[in-house]
Amino acid sequence: MSLGKSVPRVDGYEKVTGRAKYTGDLIERNALIGKILHSTVANGLVTGMDTAEAGNIPGVVKIITCFDVPDISFPTAGHPWSTDPEHQDPADRKLLNRRVRLYGDDIAAVIAQDEIAAARALRAIKVEYEEYPLVLTPEAAMKEGAPLIHEGFPNNLLKHTVMEDGNVEEAIREEGLLKFEGAYETPMVQHCHLEPAVSFAYMESGRIVIVSSTQIPHIVRRIVGQALGIPWGNVRIIKPYVGGGFGNKQDALYEPLNAYLTRQAGGRPVKLELSREEIFFGTRVRHAQKIYLTTYLRSDGRIVARKYTAYSNQGAYGSHGHSIAAKGTNAFRQLYQDEKARRAEIFTVYTNTATAGAMRGYGTPQAIFAIESHIEDIADALGMDPLEFRFKNLMPVGFTDPFSKNVNYFDSFRQCVDKCKTYIRWDEKRELYKNQSGPIRRGVGMSLFWYNTAVWPVSIEVSSCRMVLNQDGSVQIQLGETEIGQGADTVFAQMAAETLGIPFEQVHVIGTQDTDVTPFGTGAYGSRQSYVGGMAIQKTALLLKEKILRIASGYTRMPASNLAVMEGNIVLTACHNKTLLSLGELATETLYSAVHAEHITAESTGQTKSNAYSFGCAFAEVEVDIPLGKVKLLDLINAHDCGRLLNPQLAQAQVHGGMSMAIGFGLSEQLLYDEKTGKLLNGNFLDYKLPTVMDHPHLETAFAENYEPTGAYGSKALGEPPAVPGAPAIRNAVLHATGVGVNRIPLTPHILFSEFKKAGLL
Amino acid sequence: MSLGKSVPRVDGYEKVTGRAKYTGDLIERNALIGKILHSTVANGLVTGMDTAEAGNIPGVVKIITCFDVPDISFPTAGHPWSTDPEHQDPADRKLLNRRVRLYGDDIAAVIAQDEIAAARALRAIKVEYEEYPLVLTPEAAMKEGAPLIHEGFPNNLLKHTVMEDGNVEEAIREEGLLKFEGAYETPMVQHCHLEPAVSFAYMESGRIVIVSSTQIPHIVRRIVGQALGIPWGNVRIIKPYVGGGFGNKQDALYEPLNAYLTRQAGGRPVKLELSREEIFFGTRVRHAQKIYLTTYLRSDGRIVARKYTAYSNQGAYGSHGHSIAAKGTNAFRQLYQDEKARRAEIFTVYTNTATAGAMRGYGTPQAIFAIESHIEDIADALGMDPLEFRFKNLMPVGFTDPFSKNVNYFDSFRQCVDKCKTYIRWDEKRELYKNQSGPIRRGVGMSLFWYNTAVWPVSIEVSSCRMVLNQDGSVQIQLGETEIGQGADTVFAQMAAETLGIPFEQVHVIGTQDTDVTPFGTGAYGSRQSYVGGMAIQKTALLLKEKILRIASGYTRMPASNLAVMEGNIVLTACHNKTLLSLGELATETLYSAVHAEHITAESTGQTKSNAYSFGCAFAEVEVDIPLGKVKLLDLINAHDCGRLLNPQLAQAQVHGGMSMAIGFGLSEQLLYDEKTGKLLNGNFLDYKLPTVMDHPHLETAFAENYEPTGAYGSKALGEPPAVPGAPAIRNAVLHATGVGVNRIPLTPHILFSEFKKAGLL
Repeated sequence: MSLGKSVPRVDGYEKVTGRAKYTGDLIERNALIGKILHSTVANGLVTGMDTAEAGNIPGVVKIITCFDVPDISFPTAGHPWSTDPEHQDPADRKLLNRRVRLYGDDIAAVIAQDEIAAARALRAIKVEYEEYPLVLTPEAAMKEGAPLIHEGFPNNLLKHTVMEDGNVEEAIREEGLLKFEGAYETPMVQHCHLEPAVSFAYMESGRIVIVSSTQIPHIVRRIVGQALGIPWGNVRIIKPYVGGGFGNKQDALYEPLNAYLTRQAGGRPVKLELSREEIFFGTRVRHAQKIYLTTYLRSDGRIVARKYTAYSNQGAYGSHGHSIAAKGTNAFRQLYQDEKARRAEIFTVYTNTATAGAMRGYGTPQAIFAIESHIEDIADALGMDPLEFRFKNLMPVGFTDPFSKNVNYFDSFRQCVDKCKTYIRWDEKRELYKNQSGPIRRGVGMSLFWYNTAVWPVSIEVSSCRMVLNQDGSVQIQLGETEIGQGADTVFAQMAAETLGIPFEQVHVIGTQDTDVTPFGTGAYGSRQSYVGGMAIQKTALLLKEKILRIASGYTRMPASNLAVMEGNIVLTACHNKTLLSLGELATETLYSAVHAEHITAESTGQTKSNAYSFGCAFAEVEVDIPLGKVKLLDLINAHDCGRLLNPQLAQAQVHGGMSMAIGFGLSEQLLYDEKTGKLLNGNFLDYKLPTVMDHPHLETAFAENYEPTGAYGSKALGEPPAVPGAPAIRNAVLHATGVGVNRIPLTPHILFSEFKKAGLL
Repeated sequence: MSLGKSVPRVDGYEKVTGRAKYTGDLIERNALIGKILHSTVANGLVTGMDTAEAGNIPGVVKIITCFDVPDISFPTAGHPWSTDPEHQDPADRKLLNRRVRLYGDDIAAVIAQDEIAAARALRAIKVEYEEYPLVLTPEAAMKEGAPLIHEGFPNNLLKHTVMEDGNVEEAIREEGLLKFEGAYETPMVQHCHLEPAVSFAYMESGRIVIVSSTQIPHIVRRIVGQALGIPWGNVRIIKPYVGGGFGNKQDALYEPLNAYLTRQAGGRPVKLELSREEIFFGTRVRHAQKIYLTTYLRSDGRIVARKYTAYSNQGAYGSHGHSIAAKGTNAFRQLYQDEKARRAEIFTVYTNTATAGAMRGYGTPQAIFAIESHIEDIADALGMDPLEFRFKNLMPVGFTDPFSKNVNYFDSFRQCVDKCKTYIRWDEKRELYKNQSGPIRRGVGMSLFWYNTAVWPVSIEVSSCRMVLNQDGSVQIQLGETEIGQGADTVFAQMAAETLGIPFEQVHVIGTQDTDVTPFGTGAYGSRQSYVGGMAIQKTALLLKEKILRIASGYTRMPASNLAVMEGNIVLTACHNKTLLSLGELATETLYSAVHAEHITAESTGQTKSNAYSFGCAFAEVEVDIPLGKVKLLDLINAHDCGRLLNPQLAQAQVHGGMSMAIGFGLSEQLLYDEKTGKLLNGNFLDYKLPTVMDHPHLETAFAENYEPTGAYGSKALGEPPAVPGAPAIRNAVLHATGVGVNRIPLTPHILFSEFKKAGLL
């Protein structure tokens, strides 16, 4: 069987040869071009717009302004729909916004025959604004008298929650407790997927079809229906190959506007492709957070009580909103366990920056940076071994979360840490780098992380699958879950082959989702594809196999219970797995039977009412040039328990990608705003410092393979976790090298210079 | 409910506005161009081919000759596969043929970057032949010493069968019997669909994808697999909108070669579009037939015994072969019923002409022309009223065919004839035109026809359907049966709406078949779409409704038996059909339920083990200019019993199209060959006289609507029958006008001149 082996990607050949079709490759020759006019004030109201000159430019088909669009506010977050209004995402934007809330808000759109006419028209539109003061940070936005960005949200609080387990105030009355405090800050960063946000839309028989680079076709269908106020069944989303999403495409970015534009163009195809600059300021970013941690512990290192306060910068619109900060609090509440009490208070705050949404890790990179910096600082202050201190307070094996019912079945942390320690020669280097002086110093540091798989019980977890048996014994599988570059389709094929008992090469995965015919699945997010999709595949494959064996029983006179499918053949298990007939023969005979013809297919919906912890760690070695304020990453290893390794090479690739993101998060990436205008200053690949392979050391990966008992194929999250622990591991290595714990990333020379100066190193 | 009403076509807006995408619209910009080199001898062997010069032409990517292709002979007929080798279609051609059998056979193919390079390369290839004598007619081909076209087929007989019911020789010993003999000849004609035979193919993940204008995507998939010797599951056929097929696209025309070309081009997309000329000589035509009829009857007009001998010109390759002539014998054996015995002997004969295949009517236009000319001539000779004579010998109501088990449930013939008589003022005009003289004379004539629906029990009848319920209560339906312009998708939507209890507008038919995901159906032929497809739709809709009502029962606490779906709502039948909830609410609640989430879909295969007679007639009025040998068609009415009228306007359109074909068949269309070279002389729209609307009188249609008891929705064949009775009705009207019964169509001046001369009119 192929499961557990590094079989080549099912889409590998197509992608390597450039033959794979992405959205941009499918756009019709004669498609109209849609382009968006963005506001040049960060907070204000469009009071007038003059489109006369623009409308006269040859090639301009139509101009639509924020005064024209329907008065419907809609959400954009790619969450499964909830029938409970209280649990629905914030519906706070229109297709085009008169009330602009960020520099770059969408205020008009041009439909033209070509790019040039569209671009000329954009420049020719004259806009008048009433301008309001702007706020770029939660602190500023929450201040008394700050401008209100959305009506009905006092202090610009999208949401504010407090969760307390036990009673912190009571717990800290214990005598002799040590108190540690820290404030940690993470930057606003962007996903930087290679393929831009791009879609094209047209109408067919009165319905709107949108071909889009999205992670979540079925969810986008619903959101477009909401945004245009039309029945959801009148919308059809087709998702071709996707060149990366990382959570940005877990939002309905511009599909609603694109749908509206084709309707305005009488159903003609309209293309809407964002420039890199538009992606930076106008799609989604990771929530910048400021997190305050207070820890009370005994002198032996046992933590008694903790407090966590986070301010999450939501930017201009709601998107995934408070759920990001909320996921961080789960990391806080569970990764380490105090003896008595913990309190988490989180604020998600509207500001006039780019809208923050889902991004790989979904709030945990921020929380883990804070938690793992804080825990390291305490160990350092106590003079305790940081690993010993961690394990003393870590979530124990056997722990069950009362909310999610997640169980920590295995000693994954210890297994992962041991692998990393050995690789990086931890004990030796901790000793070696102890007493350094001079301008260039080395250090090793590490970070654990907490993650859980999929979104149950916060949201529903549902996935459907359909399988079609061909006359040569091969099988097509259709799934609502989406390949977005991560290798999901390959693993789906491996799973189907495993359960059906056919060779991997005999499984043809339909890589394109089409909401008209693809079984419902919510798509790629929450590191859920193999975990949740796997359950749907297994359930459907078992249904299909049951049909096959029932039919085979009729043909062979053998009871189905004595039959099995192995390597594409029906075998008699009761007689040394003797082959009775091939699956192809069975399918052909059945389809063309004059007695009872049947096209053998199976379809089912699987609902997953579980969730699984997915733990691990990263260890980093750095060399710090103190005068230059420069961190050179010498080595980085990530170790993960993602359950059974379904495809080791793909798993490794997943981890490599996440590590790269973590390096950028820790060392170089951040979006910077002009404080006066609210304009994004570095929204391009020249000024935004995305690390490249030239900035990477060798990336090492290790796995602790504990079969996940709640998973259909023993696997659990691996999509997002790799992006989580890298930054705090690097930060802690810098602490080891220099004795300076820097609480704000990215660790740029700019920041390090001032921190080193403060610490007296310069 | 919409069923039975003339709702607009689901694809009407798209097609009228030119927005509907046909195969040619979908071909990628950078597709390579495939072009075929055709032989310039009609019978012979390619002994050498020099491609050196052609290969050097800039833009030529590859040249493949008949020396290169795999040594695999494959069939092309679009029949469902039979697991009985005896029942499989003749496998007698290769992708490219060294042994050429018609002028225009495929001997090489060029793949080039553009049309011009491809065309230049074709001209630059040098071919050497060994030439054999050629035969263009069955008579010539069956002669002793005639060249053998295919090995293993002596006398070029593809097949020869004799069916005798009773003993004719014994029956005709009865004293006093009158004997009538006639020989009838029908022309080779072409389908002349507007959209050419066109496809493009490419490879994806090692599999071959072919987008093609075909009536039979699932069957083409199998044939491509056979032709290339690859597993069928490695072939994927996608059928977009089709601009007419009429049976020509019920063959795998060039999809196998197209598949081979993309493989030779490393999987790059290759387009293969035939010119009109290539379509004429190189695709399929209607079998030209020569039919000999002998009838023995008593002086009171009662037929005692009959003989039928037909020679069917198969052309160069097997295609649908003998089944065409065989269907004609069913018309002979059943439409009129002798008292004692009948004998049918049919010969299907290879010749060096275009390959004959399926064409609207499938052998019945030829047989009915012979039968209805013959019966008219006898009535005329006996001085009997032609209608009275027909009804005296006609298949009686209640007749059951012992083979197909078809029952003639209704007095359809009488009902249809009565409608036509009234319309055309038959009795009045029969009298009025009795004793005409002068050069210009008028006449009325008529013809009955025999037809049956679908292909059971000759082949299997299987159709599958899948339905997907959306969150707004609308439904997608997917069916293997194909819309090829006839309006099938509209009627499918009406059927689904009817059984599901939802508005017609809420049914979204997936108009594109994709063999990877579309449920299996054999496609458009045998006038089976609404009859067989309807059963699959009904079965699947009932399954879906059962699921819906079961779920509704859970939500409403009402037993499912007291619930129904009406106009898209779940209603309580036990309480004045009170609406409890909408289907949309039910679907939304069920999909997003945290208790038991389910994507509500249903899929099933229906197997039809029945078949239905589909009878009717045509009445024509003509004006004959004897000196000019010109027939002017003044009026034509077709009357059909096609069971329940599912969509009267679409039904009428079906009949209009068939009548137009019948007019061409009777008056102007024929393919003519150069007897020396075997080259087609008039394979273009200038020289081939396809009638246009300018050649048509008003076309009148009438229906006798008898609900077909074997049909899921009471309907039966209407696709092909309209093309059948027109030609003999016109021929019989000419007989009425002039006293001359012309036994050879088309009734061109060329033929009429000699017939009128022979009869002494000139």
